[in-house]
Amino acid sequence: MTRYKILVEYDGTNLIGWQKQLEGLSVQECLEKSLNAFTHQNIEVLAAGRTDAGVHATAQVAHFDLDTKMELFRLREAFNAHLRDMKAPVSVLDIEPVSNDFHARFSAKGRGYVYKILNRRARPVLLENRVWWVPFPLDVDLMREGTKYLLGHHDFSAFRGAGCQALSPVKTLDRLDIIQNGDEIDFIVEAKSFIYHQVRNMVGTLKMVGDKHFAPEDVKRILESKKRSEAGVTAPASGLYLNKVVY
Amino acid sequence: MTRYKILVEYDGTNLIGWQKQLEGLSVQECLEKSLNAFTHQNIEVLAAGRTDAGVHATAQVAHFDLDTKMELFRLREAFNAHLRDMKAPVSVLDIEPVSNDFHARFSAKGRGYVYKILNRRARPVLLENRVWWVPFPLDVDLMREGTKYLLGHHDFSAFRGAGCQALSPVKTLDRLDIIQNGDEIDFIVEAKSFIYHQVRNMVGTLKMVGDKHFAPEDVKRILESKKRSEAGVTAPASGLYLNKVVY
Repeated sequence: MTRYKILVEYDGTNLIGWQKQLEGLSVQECLEKSLNAFTHQNIEVLAAGRTDAGVHATAQVAHFDLDTKMELFRLREAFNAHLRDMKAPVSVLDIEPVSNDFHARFSAKGRGYVYKILNRRARPVLLENRVWWVPFPLDVDLMREGTKYLLGHHDFSAFRGAGCQALSPVKTLDRLDIIQNGDEIDFIVEAKSFIYHQVRNMVGTLKMVGDKHFAPEDVKRILESKKRSEAGVTAPASGLYLNKVVY
Repeated sequence: MTRYKILVEYDGTNLIGWQKQLEGLSVQECLEKSLNAFTHQNIEVLAAGRTDAGVHATAQVAHFDLDTKMELFRLREAFNAHLRDMKAPVSVLDIEPVSNDFHARFSAKGRGYVYKILNRRARPVLLENRVWWVPFPLDVDLMREGTKYLLGHHDFSAFRGAGCQALSPVKTLDRLDIIQNGDEIDFIVEAKSFIYHQVRNMVGTLKMVGDKHFAPEDVKRILESKKRSEAGVTAPASGLYLNKVVY
């Protein structure tokens, strides 16, 4: 038995998220079906981050165990050939054998996301389903001021989505940078781990700083309230990309 | 009567190109139908570059004449609202009144394209229909060496597509830079004007330098042959973006 680590890209638009469910197509199901197609075994694939419906990944990490001996190159080719046949919006970028105690989720030391806002009046067509389209001007400097209250070790209950299964709302936010490039505004977010909807709720709140619904200092007040009802909207899934998992 | 200049973005994937034809949906038809929906007039919209089926634009320029007096902001909003209702993959980014002798095509002093190759083994999903996927490694240095023979004033007959209506195959290529960013390879191309399929035929030939089918010096031989049959393949439309028109 060999354990393999894979690096996975997906377009989350028409997927129900990472995890298998009774209804709808998940990333996990795509990968497991593809594996089944050439190994004829039922193999479970486990991911570093169980992304939601509509969320994308440029570098999700997952692992699985395989009895059959296969060359690495052939294994990746078979994986992708079957994903392609299934018209799955999922691609395996890289594959490598790892030790049997490696676990995509529990061994992860850090996770990175990028959240993309397109801030312009005209509707996106080339970036449809790839960004959050915000048609009113956002003040990036104000949003940057708001980020400083979120960095570090806090109780993030105010940014915790309903149904969160994390044991504790206390997390350490290591990075929250805002990079502006023309009319695209990217939020670069890094932590060891996140609570449910944390990135989308932080971005939704910072967006409301950018459009002056909130002042930057309100972010401090919201965080300290520990109440979800004090914070801003949940930013849509279409702008979120899992782009890094550190081991 | 006021003449307006518009800046247009489109996803060319499901379009037959800029120009109206009997079958299929064109960018021109989308824009003219949208104008008709709120002016109830038949207004012709003329573009700087008549892009082909599948080719994208981040900044196509076009013009049209309008009798009705409308505020600029309202005009753009109406344009985009109707494009959205039509589910057209076309968006009007900007609009401004221009003098009556402005002509999107004939007043243009220069045009810029970017051509995007994704050079990796795994099939693209987030960039599907947005790049030319080349799964075998390309040598960017060799391709760069090949570009130097194309820069400047030449007879580009070897890169002229069938059905080209240009009076002369002699053009001046002002810029042909290759920028590598991870596994994306961008060709930045600028000239006053191009002959039919020139960018895609140049990129297709340079790609065959990158995969060592041709040597860089072969580009000189191909150019001097003036024979289309000597050059490489026509790069697919999906990687091409019209991204600049200079007046």
